[in-house]
Amino acid sequence: MAWTNAKNKALQERARDVIPNGMYGHQSVSLLPDEYPQFFSRGRGCRLWDVDDNEYVDMMCGFGPNLLGYGFEPVEAAALAQQAKGDALTGPSEVMVELAETFVSMIDHAKWAMFCKNGTDATSIAVVVARAQTGRRKILYATGTYHGAAPWCTPRPAGILPEDRAHIVYYQYNDLDSLETAFRQCEGDVAAVIATPFVHEVFRDQVDPEQEFAVGARQLCDKHGALLILDEVRAGFRLARGSSWAKFDVQPDLSAWGKCFANGHPISAVLGSESARKGASAMFTTGSFWFAATPMAAAIETLRHIRESDYMEKMIDAGRRLRDGLQQQAASHGFTLKQTGPVQMPQILFEDDPDFRFGYHWCAETLQRGAYLHPYHNMFVSSAHTLADMNDVLAATDEAFAAVRKNRDAIQPNAALMRVLPARK
Amino acid sequence: MAWTNAKNKALQERARDVIPNGMYGHQSVSLLPDEYPQFFSRGRGCRLWDVDDNEYVDMMCGFGPNLLGYGFEPVEAAALAQQAKGDALTGPSEVMVELAETFVSMIDHAKWAMFCKNGTDATSIAVVVARAQTGRRKILYATGTYHGAAPWCTPRPAGILPEDRAHIVYYQYNDLDSLETAFRQCEGDVAAVIATPFVHEVFRDQVDPEQEFAVGARQLCDKHGALLILDEVRAGFRLARGSSWAKFDVQPDLSAWGKCFANGHPISAVLGSESARKGASAMFTTGSFWFAATPMAAAIETLRHIRESDYMEKMIDAGRRLRDGLQQQAASHGFTLKQTGPVQMPQILFEDDPDFRFGYHWCAETLQRGAYLHPYHNMFVSSAHTLADMNDVLAATDEAFAAVRKNRDAIQPNAALMRVLPARK
Repeated sequence: MAWTNAKNKALQERARDVIPNGMYGHQSVSLLPDEYPQFFSRGRGCRLWDVDDNEYVDMMCGFGPNLLGYGFEPVEAAALAQQAKGDALTGPSEVMVELAETFVSMIDHAKWAMFCKNGTDATSIAVVVARAQTGRRKILYATGTYHGAAPWCTPRPAGILPEDRAHIVYYQYNDLDSLETAFRQCEGDVAAVIATPFVHEVFRDQVDPEQEFAVGARQLCDKHGALLILDEVRAGFRLARGSSWAKFDVQPDLSAWGKCFANGHPISAVLGSESARKGASAMFTTGSFWFAATPMAAAIETLRHIRESDYMEKMIDAGRRLRDGLQQQAASHGFTLKQTGPVQMPQILFEDDPDFRFGYHWCAETLQRGAYLHPYHNMFVSSAHTLADMNDVLAATDEAFAAVRKNRDAIQPNAALMRVLPARK
Repeated sequence: MAWTNAKNKALQERARDVIPNGMYGHQSVSLLPDEYPQFFSRGRGCRLWDVDDNEYVDMMCGFGPNLLGYGFEPVEAAALAQQAKGDALTGPSEVMVELAETFVSMIDHAKWAMFCKNGTDATSIAVVVARAQTGRRKILYATGTYHGAAPWCTPRPAGILPEDRAHIVYYQYNDLDSLETAFRQCEGDVAAVIATPFVHEVFRDQVDPEQEFAVGARQLCDKHGALLILDEVRAGFRLARGSSWAKFDVQPDLSAWGKCFANGHPISAVLGSESARKGASAMFTTGSFWFAATPMAAAIETLRHIRESDYMEKMIDAGRRLRDGLQQQAASHGFTLKQTGPVQMPQILFEDDPDFRFGYHWCAETLQRGAYLHPYHNMFVSSAHTLADMNDVLAATDEAFAAVRKNRDAIQPNAALMRVLPARK
């Protein structure tokens, strides 16, 4: 069946009336190639169908939540069983204690857990806990990294006031000197350093953390009596079965988790060590659905699979197949790709493509051949991605490389992107 | 079967290790009578079972989300059908457009909708939209009212900085003079006035809005070019099938919704008029699970019942039965109750009970006889509460009144409450 998008276009037309800009947030396709569908009808394993019934191998995994496959049976069964008993009741259920115990047992630094809904809830709570714990104000924040969409961290300035960030002080990721400088500037007033396990930002190559930086950040926090917050929302459980910086022997005081630990069911978490329990006990935060049992039951089952299954090895195998295959294809078609970050969370950009025109064209051609890649955001592999699925992706990308090569001189940059790219660079 | 709480106590013991204070947020029982269970095993209709299998008529409805009954079949069927297709996919599903169209069609002022997870998301987005729309900073906020648990509004100061509230300016609810004074103080810099449809605060009588106040707030906003935000998170769809201030012919520019419009499935919303679309289009906000389809399918079905069923009349009938019955019982036992707010959202306090000792004792006695009342927070009626259920509540409360009367001189105030009450008053 030929690729079509008539139903999607009609829905986008309707959405423009009743949703600002037709869509908001990270799942808006306004900066994607024109062909990208905004609306989807279903998902199964690593496969996704848009509203026009085009089928894709989905390399975005819902922007992270899909870790074990859409509709993964054991997690869905646990969720259904809990939902039949009760979800958002007048108090939490036993699963909340079980989940807290389980999660804490898996994350070396953690002694306690709080559950919430959004990744932004988790990072924002961690910041407030650090301030409550230390009685200090400053949060040291790596320039240009995403920690959520609240006023203290959202990447777009509209509606945000200088006071919202009065005590956010910026350093450069992987640059210990800049972190030391920030500590010196805020002598005695640093509540916490916040960092992602690695740099996973839009429109940029991903950057691995240097061990020296991770270790040094921990030492600086200890020296100055500040807390270290590791923002695992995006990368958590895709790099490791525990804390992402455990490989460096670096333990944060607080960690923020979200997206995938209930395999798509809505829940996020703040985990903390004893060094942050007092602050967590003093502050007040809550949400109408934070104590709901269904996502907690889903999380318990997902964490069990994280501990007991070979999901990680499957993700790595599949991710490596894709990276190696693309590397060969690019070379044979005369292109060079920048494939950065762990293979489980690939960022794929074209070398010598400052306005992203080749990457966009390549993704659009791939899309229409049955694989959903993202031209500027890191992607996500799930354990439902088999080597056969990756071969399907590679079949699509090979033809897409040929199309880019053929059209090379005629390809224009994306107009919507060109309106915002200068501001982003 | 006699009321017991051994299993609950054991779970609370375990929770103290792995959850700050053993529990956080509005569902913590730390300020409730000692008998109150922290953990529940299931819910059905208006009935709730704790982990020791004690059964209650639940007058809290999950603190609001339960509008049509726990496990209400038509909503659960819609949610299950959507969940089987897909929930948190790489983009939204068709139900997002359908939900936005439906919701907007039901709320007079609204022309667009954004969906999120927490009530706090909705109020916080409304504030940022108002600032983005007007290019102004000040938010006029009624002293002592709850609009969520983010730094700009959370009721407890730990971890919160003065800058978080640098541009929050307070007025007195129902006091137009104080609102005018606030406008004068912030001449030309008021982005929005935020208000709840009525005052529904802990430890206080509820207060109905005066028409003069609602109309006057709208006029002051118009005069000064500010937006009016109505925070419907708690009261929405319990007072009216549309906007809660429509009865005054007062339309806000922005309204925040949450809790009950998907009958317990996790979703909240900001609705806006054309006067706020530009600001909503300019700001950036998002969440990992905000585009998930299952709660949207549940919301569409819940909104259909709100439009087409007699759910409202059922809530009012049941609420009135309770209020009238309690009034008679209190009189016959020699007590006076302060029953405030709409009967669908009753607040029930004892007259001449400054440290709440009688209310607490009465609630504890009622609890052990099979009805879950709250001694300091407003309660919620659902359409699953029948007159027979309310008679069961009244049977419990009648015996509880007798117990309070009998023990009157021996009743002591709650120790945990006494540690925090002075700071609250």
